[in-house]
Amino acid sequence: MKQIVDLNCDMGEGFGQWVLSEAPDDQIMALISSANVATGFHAGDPNSMNKVVQLAGKFGVGLGAHPGYRDLQGFGRRTIKMTSEELVNDILYQVGALREFGRRHGVPLQHIKPHGALYMEAAVNEELSQHLVETIAKTSSNAILFCMGISQTYEVAERAGHPVVREFYADRDYDASGSIVFRRQVARPDPTKIAAKCVKACLEGTVTTIDGEDVAIEFESICLHSDTPGALAIGLAIRNGLTEAGVKIAPAATVLGL
Amino acid sequence: MKQIVDLNCDMGEGFGQWVLSEAPDDQIMALISSANVATGFHAGDPNSMNKVVQLAGKFGVGLGAHPGYRDLQGFGRRTIKMTSEELVNDILYQVGALREFGRRHGVPLQHIKPHGALYMEAAVNEELSQHLVETIAKTSSNAILFCMGISQTYEVAERAGHPVVREFYADRDYDASGSIVFRRQVARPDPTKIAAKCVKACLEGTVTTIDGEDVAIEFESICLHSDTPGALAIGLAIRNGLTEAGVKIAPAATVLGL
Amino acid sequence: MKQIVDLNCDMGEGFGQWVLSEAPDDQIMALISSANVATGFHAGDPNSMNKVVQLAGKFGVGLGAHPGYRDLQGFGRRTIKMTSEELVNDILYQVGALREFGRRHGVPLQHIKPHGALYMEAAVNEELSQHLVETIAKTSSNAILFCMGISQTYEVAERAGHPVVREFYADRDYDASGSIVFRRQVARPDPTKIAAKCVKACLEGTVTTIDGEDVAIEFESICLHSDTPGALAIGLAIRNGLTEAGVKIAPAATVLGL
Amino acid sequence: MKQIVDLNCDMGEGFGQWVLSEAPDDQIMALISSANVATGFHAGDPNSMNKVVQLAGKFGVGLGAHPGYRDLQGFGRRTIKMTSEELVNDILYQVGALREFGRRHGVPLQHIKPHGALYMEAAVNEELSQHLVETIAKTSSNAILFCMGISQTYEVAERAGHPVVREFYADRDYDASGSIVFRRQVARPDPTKIAAKCVKACLEGTVTTIDGEDVAIEFESICLHSDTPGALAIGLAIRNGLTEAGVKIAPAATVLGL
Repeated sequence: MKQIVDLNCDMGEGFGQWVLSEAPDDQIMALISSANVATGFHAGDPNSMNKVVQLAGKFGVGLGAHPGYRDLQGFGRRTIKMTSEELVNDILYQVGALREFGRRHGVPLQHIKPHGALYMEAAVNEELSQHLVETIAKTSSNAILFCMGISQTYEVAERAGHPVVREFYADRDYDASGSIVFRRQVARPDPTKIAAKCVKACLEGTVTTIDGEDVAIEFESICLHSDTPGALAIGLAIRNGLTEAGVKIAPAATVLGL
Repeated sequence: MKQIVDLNCDMGEGFGQWVLSEAPDDQIMALISSANVATGFHAGDPNSMNKVVQLAGKFGVGLGAHPGYRDLQGFGRRTIKMTSEELVNDILYQVGALREFGRRHGVPLQHIKPHGALYMEAAVNEELSQHLVETIAKTSSNAILFCMGISQTYEVAERAGHPVVREFYADRDYDASGSIVFRRQVARPDPTKIAAKCVKACLEGTVTTIDGEDVAIEFESICLHSDTPGALAIGLAIRNGLTEAGVKIAPAATVLGL
Repeated sequence: MKQIVDLNCDMGEGFGQWVLSEAPDDQIMALISSANVATGFHAGDPNSMNKVVQLAGKFGVGLGAHPGYRDLQGFGRRTIKMTSEELVNDILYQVGALREFGRRHGVPLQHIKPHGALYMEAAVNEELSQHLVETIAKTSSNAILFCMGISQTYEVAERAGHPVVREFYADRDYDASGSIVFRRQVARPDPTKIAAKCVKACLEGTVTTIDGEDVAIEFESICLHSDTPGALAIGLAIRNGLTEAGVKIAPAATVLGL
Repeated sequence: MKQIVDLNCDMGEGFGQWVLSEAPDDQIMALISSANVATGFHAGDPNSMNKVVQLAGKFGVGLGAHPGYRDLQGFGRRTIKMTSEELVNDILYQVGALREFGRRHGVPLQHIKPHGALYMEAAVNEELSQHLVETIAKTSSNAILFCMGISQTYEVAERAGHPVVREFYADRDYDASGSIVFRRQVARPDPTKIAAKCVKACLEGTVTTIDGEDVAIEFESICLHSDTPGALAIGLAIRNGLTEAGVKIAPAATVLGL
């Protein structure tokens, strides 16, 4: 049984005049323990980063960089074929940009979570994961890398002894291998069901697959999407469910005991 | 008489496949003591930044961020009307991105020099200079701000006690007020004449204006442009001229005794 | 008394995943007679342009290009200092891009309306307006230029005999000179009042200023903003108000008798 | 034996201050018969497009759009995973932008040649080629599509009866299948040898492969790269070689008899 878990959410994924989420930033911040802040390549701009970092500090939320492919139009969801070195440079650039706003507001960088297609690419690309882990070991030895449990990223980080956190996707389905099934949500997700799923995953360490079986699942952080319709209600339901079940929500660094 | 002076140059001002300067980066690095590295908004990309930072470390050259307006097409030479807070956020973003490559290669950030139209805007905009100095005092209290001697940037930084360096433009003309006269060079500049101008400025503290008179000039760093035709020959002539005249060339931090 | 008027609205002002307006495109299209389609520099992308052009064709709405400054982050609301030739090239690029989607869907280009800061810059910059009118006279001799009644753009187009349409801003206040007063709306605008203002402007040719006086106003098109809260209700109120008052709503080209 | 052939070259592949080719545009234009003009996504900006289109008109060179992936940093050489509809929209946008400058200078659009990774993607992606050919059949029924002889693009265009031109790469090596071998040139290419290769290809319809055998090759246009070192000398050698061999150089439309 898990007594403590992180609850993370992507934040600041608008650009200029545009916003992505209907949920106000401060209300989301009040619910979560780690924020993945968009760093300008797939979403986010210096002004949004400044605001979200300040909010993270105010709410005591762990600050994370959320770097993506340089593709505003595609929102970082389209893979761009490039070398691992190019990708690592793109990631460093974005991580550094975010860290600077942390310096401004006295909020240290807690973690790094690649976004969208870059997260998925790292998951299956061992060379990229290797290069990324080696590089951030130099630049950010205590910055936790966020990834899926079944991924090259996790394998490589574990092997290297770099702090790593596996995510549980509250609003995604799982298959028998414990992998996420990507498919478009048809219905508006039910906060109660999602909360129950999270509580079960924390207490029993299992998730019910799309085929109705229970499989073991390992994770240190639950991922919430702020652009899911009803995100606030879902976040609140998860928080209340976990609290009632005696599971504490805390930033990833606390969960790892760093 | 000046016994020590910095020699700075803009570096990494290409983008992707494109390069700006005909002079190879390593040959320029061998001549200068401070490098202003383009940080991606007007020029430069994560790959060029990574390379130039590594080179700066190798050559013991002071590392500087060279942030500009977000305008690749205009090369940061077109003023964009925005608030001081927006500009400061744009600057922080770029400074942080560069600093991260410094972390990778063990090269600390020595200075910040705004680029092009942003440099000129800060020079005349007291509110912007004020906001910039106050902000970097928090994020980078020992990062030297580069500016023109006759500028709001200098006035504000001096008043605030923030480390500041005034530049002498080796390849630009001056008027009776000691200000730079911006006009297109017609002829290819003569390295010998430029070197003599620098030596005189260091030894006598004066520059001959476009009207033929000598006026006093104060500075701690000489600025060389790597995209001036014959930049390598000019850099070499300045370096040799200063050395023969007994003026030492050293990074800005050394010149300021930091 | 005006028997016919155009009702125009900016459309497609999202980018990639982001949308600007809460109002669905097709519901807005059903209300208006001319659409100003964002062409990618301040907002809009090839996919949104394709969709909006197709919709314009379906609803028989006059198709307009809505080119802006190349500044996605600033949404084209920040002036960028550049030459008239550079601006005209930026405009031609965007107009051509839109026209191509018109070729795909069989919808001819009806008009050109510069966006945001570019619209305002042209209004006060006679040289830019002159260069723009001369250029589009070559490329689009029958494309109507949209502008404010009190503007260099109008003066220049009139003089040159280029088709031009003056706009009446339904949701903006006017001063004694007949110019728009730019200030942030505090309250959610009242559809009934806005509709009444439009009807009065059409029937009596006057608008009540912020000082309570009536001044004469000349225009051929009413401008509706799709990102104003309650845009659909406002659009519907205007349409109903005008129809009841016997004022026909038709595309700008029809209003001009082209 | 071929009595007439087109000689095409990519043009305007700089961006803002940056240039790609050492060869002056007008000197290249004097040598070629078709120009592929970069349209802003991988290279090129409205100002460069305006200049190159004007030059094409002056030299009587066939005007072509050279659309690429939206990736300035990667120069359109990195595949971005997206749908055919998204790619076709990106292409239409760029083609229209270029066509508009043609309207300004009275130069009709002769052809469309996708750039870099997009050219290669279309070559192997039948669905994309199909969607592209169907779409430009509507928007540009007489705009010739440029492609490799061994490609889906050629197959699809031929089948659809859309005008198509196959390219012969003067400065690339071929294998036994008649396909191009992509490898970095080590030595500076020899203009005389390249010219001889072009003459042989025109007169005998064959090319010598990297294995030393002659294979049949079919093409209507020879492709020259303006960023190959010594491009001007190569272009001149090809032009002179072909002329002496009695092969006329003419725009693709003339070669196809359109």
